Amino acid sequence: MQYQLHYWPTIQGRGEFVRLALEAAGADYVDIARGQPGDGEGMATMMHFMKSAKVERPPFAPPFLVHGKVIVGQTSAILLYLGPRIGLVGKSEVQRLWTHQLQLTIADVVAEAHDTHHPIASSLYYEDQKKEASRRAADFRDERLPGFLAWFESVLARNPKGSTHLVGGRLSYADLSLFQLVEGVLYAFPKAGSRALKEAPLVAALHAGVAQHRRLAGYLASERRIAFNEDGIFRRYPELDA
Amino acid sequence: MQYQLHYWPTIQGRGEFVRLALEAAGADYVDIARGQPGDGEGMATMMHFMKSAKVERPPFAPPFLVHGKVIVGQTSAILLYLGPRIGLVGKSEVQRLWTHQLQLTIADVVAEAHDTHHPIASSLYYEDQKKEASRRAADFRDERLPGFLAWFESVLARNPKGSTHLVGGRLSYADLSLFQLVEGVLYAFPKAGSRALKEAPLVAALHAGVAQHRRLAGYLASERRIAFNEDGIFRRYPELDA
Repeated sequence: MQYQLHYWPTIQGRGEFVRLALEAAGADYVDIARGQPGDGEGMATMMHFMKSAKVERPPFAPPFLVHGKVIVGQTSAILLYLGPRIGLVGKSEVQRLWTHQLQLTIADVVAEAHDTHHPIASSLYYEDQKKEASRRAADFRDERLPGFLAWFESVLARNPKGSTHLVGGRLSYADLSLFQLVEGVLYAFPKAGSRALKEAPLVAALHAGVAQHRRLAGYLASERRIAFNEDGIFRRYPELDA
Repeated sequence: MQYQLHYWPTIQGRGEFVRLALEAAGADYVDIARGQPGDGEGMATMMHFMKSAKVERPPFAPPFLVHGKVIVGQTSAILLYLGPRIGLVGKSEVQRLWTHQLQLTIADVVAEAHDTHHPIASSLYYEDQKKEASRRAADFRDERLPGFLAWFESVLARNPKGSTHLVGGRLSYADLSLFQLVEGVLYAFPKAGSRALKEAPLVAALHAGVAQHRRLAGYLASERRIAFNEDGIFRRYPELDA
């Protein structure tokens, strides 16, 4: 059965973590909000699930996945659901739990990266919180980002199956998400991101390795990959980098 | 096998969501960092799991659970693991996924509640970010909190098994966590929290109902329940309420 991904159509955002998994697995999916209303797609179809009182389990926000009668929101929960179905997680409960724990920690970094440009309110413009953003971004660059990357580095170093992957000896959705996190950090913070990655060479190697994945490389070069932009989570505001 | 909860010993914090589940289920557990070094407990035991290079799957931060050879970090992942084992989640995959999705959304609110007093950096004192906190808290009180509560209200209203519980007709860990979220919000924002709850009567009723749970009521009245304080996630700074 085809997977329906529902997410804002003009940004990578949190939806990209799901897109990368679906693309790397070669799964049959449709990116609903980027489609045409005539095909039963487009923004109105996405908003229906969020607004209609007939939806028993409404998602709080995109992204969410519709698969037959199942509706799942929250990026990490979507990947928890998809992982075993598209072959992007190990078979044992311990492996699945560990992969999910890594994903949740990546989600924490993503939320903090977002708050570097929106530390006061998502509903306000960046221009209305620039001063606060400057302070928060400095803490992210100097403390949080290096701390998180050091943790992922230690996870890779301790993987008994080798440091190419976060969990076991095969690609998982957590590898794809860490790749995307690094992509975003290098886009938003070219200076601080490069500096932090020098201290986390295994993370940098994972990022380079995932980019070589055949199907993923095809996706990244395609028009389906939306470019980073200043409406998304990772934004390049030069004054926030150093 | 006994569960070991590892969390900071002087605050409710994120550990409290796990404590509530263990307590409500009457599970056999020990709150490691609150124990004595002579018993193999205390802070040093907790820090070992975070610092020792011999730990293959180190948690990024407390809380984490140790259960035999399993170590699980991230509050929501801990509850995902515990739920089926202690009877605090439904049996079907759809129910478990939905309960987890609710938990992840509660975790999002908790992170936002924390950032009302620490919008710039967790490593700085509140006093060093009071101005920014004032702006962020206003957005939380006026926009975010009512928005989240309205969503939980609709989830309760749409539960085909009745509005007493978030999922199905029985208590789940998500109910306990929503109870705790309301507790925290009422502590930190007595004015704005009460106002928001008036608009979410089913959430308010769930909060009152969970407090009546026999084992949970016993726990809440015991010394094991740490009082809210200004080192935790929910802090009462009167200047942030209105």
